[in-house]
Amino acid sequence: MAFTLLHTDPASKARAGELQTAHGVIRTPIFMPVGTVASVKGVHQRELREEIDPDIILGNTYHLYLRPGMEILEKAGGLHRFMNWERPILTDSGGYQVYSLSGTRKIKEEGVKFQSHIDGSRHLFTPESVMELQRTIGADIIMAFDECTPYPCDRRYAERSMHMTHRWLDRCMAHLEKAPPKYGFDQLFFPIVQGSVYTDLRQQSAEYIAAAGAPGNAIGGLSVGEPAEEMYAMAEAVCDILPREKPRYLMGVGTPVNILENIALGVDMFDCVMPTRNARNGMLFTSEGTINIKNKKWEDDFSPLDPMGHTFVDREYTRAYLRHLFAANEYLGKQIATIHNLGFYLWLVREARRRILDGTFAPWKAEMVAKMDKRL
Amino acid sequence: MAFTLLHTDPASKARAGELQTAHGVIRTPIFMPVGTVASVKGVHQRELREEIDPDIILGNTYHLYLRPGMEILEKAGGLHRFMNWERPILTDSGGYQVYSLSGTRKIKEEGVKFQSHIDGSRHLFTPESVMELQRTIGADIIMAFDECTPYPCDRRYAERSMHMTHRWLDRCMAHLEKAPPKYGFDQLFFPIVQGSVYTDLRQQSAEYIAAAGAPGNAIGGLSVGEPAEEMYAMAEAVCDILPREKPRYLMGVGTPVNILENIALGVDMFDCVMPTRNARNGMLFTSEGTINIKNKKWEDDFSPLDPMGHTFVDREYTRAYLRHLFAANEYLGKQIATIHNLGFYLWLVREARRRILDGTFAPWKAEMVAKMDKRL
Repeated sequence: MAFTLLHTDPASKARAGELQTAHGVIRTPIFMPVGTVASVKGVHQRELREEIDPDIILGNTYHLYLRPGMEILEKAGGLHRFMNWERPILTDSGGYQVYSLSGTRKIKEEGVKFQSHIDGSRHLFTPESVMELQRTIGADIIMAFDECTPYPCDRRYAERSMHMTHRWLDRCMAHLEKAPPKYGFDQLFFPIVQGSVYTDLRQQSAEYIAAAGAPGNAIGGLSVGEPAEEMYAMAEAVCDILPREKPRYLMGVGTPVNILENIALGVDMFDCVMPTRNARNGMLFTSEGTINIKNKKWEDDFSPLDPMGHTFVDREYTRAYLRHLFAANEYLGKQIATIHNLGFYLWLVREARRRILDGTFAPWKAEMVAKMDKRL
Repeated sequence: MAFTLLHTDPASKARAGELQTAHGVIRTPIFMPVGTVASVKGVHQRELREEIDPDIILGNTYHLYLRPGMEILEKAGGLHRFMNWERPILTDSGGYQVYSLSGTRKIKEEGVKFQSHIDGSRHLFTPESVMELQRTIGADIIMAFDECTPYPCDRRYAERSMHMTHRWLDRCMAHLEKAPPKYGFDQLFFPIVQGSVYTDLRQQSAEYIAAAGAPGNAIGGLSVGEPAEEMYAMAEAVCDILPREKPRYLMGVGTPVNILENIALGVDMFDCVMPTRNARNGMLFTSEGTINIKNKKWEDDFSPLDPMGHTFVDREYTRAYLRHLFAANEYLGKQIATIHNLGFYLWLVREARRRILDGTFAPWKAEMVAKMDKRL
């Protein structure tokens, strides 16, 4: 068994565990910084490792397929070696990007035909081809090829799509059975629950996915525009069905509050571009609320960026200095904000884990949720 | 005396020395990374300090005047504290940027009227106002306000302009006499030799500047498009006149070869945007020649960026990876190339210094110049 459930919070469904992968142990709950094209934007691998210190990061199959491409990644011996990152990596299946980034795309039973968002070239992703891509990338955790339905999504479409995602899952698993990992280490395969915001579809999908007996399970198709309450309702309905002895990964979520709420519902793993993308727009997440560092009010605030912060940027730079860098459009501003935000997200999940293990998660979560929603 | 001349190379005019400033000793010859708007673009102060390790960096008065502006810098207690850089800083006088960046500008005896390149707002720089700006910024070395003539420049204009630069120098010095430094530490004032590419004008200007008795002297108006041979001829003519017991700063120069050639002529200090700007365009300087990392030939070269390199990026990243980052337009590529290039420039001047001190500068310089001109 790759996953060890260490503790469940008595006052919520929050869990603390350990997931063993080929490149190391992932302590859950965990947030995975997004390293889209083999780089967490603006962050050196050394800073990621030593300052932000995540147990795992995420790469995007769609982006890596287009650039640098599979030939280069295979020659490099996989993504870990290509980007010099020796800790665990998870890759998505490319589905989400095909739906959100590419121009024309055509979804059929066979797979998805799409055009590159870079040069308009035409490509086909099938469950089988996407498993091949993820074998070549060589992540520690690889994802099933699914259709991520949009929001809103009518029930008939959601149901049809869910069944196709299930059939695609079977094809992914059949393919992997014949095709062992390429680089001499195991890859953990996670299937994905779909079903839009329809509780019964979500439950039906969770049953199907649970029955696949994979080492971990994911919840997709959320955080696509639905109200937070619907997201929580779906996550809870699904977590109640997915096996408790396997890790649960809620894809693409979310704000710090979303993360704590979903941890309380039994989710173990998260990824989201929010800390990195919002950082590049000057938005800082802190334990006291969010800061728009572009605001004029910070221009002569010479206090440290975040006295409660967890990385060197919080101690070495002032709010006035960071505000200036954004005003002057200096890229160092984006670098600083990115490291701050990722440092905060990783602190948040590590602290959640500590609180779960010592039994104080529920009151701490309530207090944090109230604070973090503020704008400073 | 701020400057100590430690050794002069027997086979050239190269010198090794030490310049004492309020924020520390500068070992010469030195290259000063350019931190235009209170940031060396894409480089954390910590990386600058620990990896690139220059004794001094440069800030641009024109840019700092426009953003963050003098009110913020004065409230911060000067640029060192604003940007959290505790080693020496030199600021230019803003003249060069006024001439090269601003839209309409009008040069009169009083000073220069110009429009901001950011918002078109109208401003006036005079010798007196620029001394005030540099007092507020609080650099360790501050520069006279001069006119940097373009290339080519007709002789009559060059001569008239040179005399105005000399009159402006007198006004700068008269102003500084009445206005002591603002933050409790000394600022070393350097006047600037002009005279375009006319040897007799350069000599005349060097005599005038030498007579000012400042703690160091600069050579401006070169590296503005003239052939390298003219630059060397002017630098040599000027160095032969400027006092040997004062440091000599050649402004805005240059390529690695330019730097070694000018060191051999008796120049002690350099600054240039080339290592940082060219890095952002994918050009790497190495001891074996230059690399255009965007070139397809590097796409599957998994060797370290520069096995002879001097910073962590040279050891931690491959050429294939850096090539990918540029192809995918990932900012980390620019960060890596910038650190590499500055690491190389600083190694180059440190090695030159070591060679001057141990008497092997001239043959080493000849060998390096031959190698560094190659394209790899």
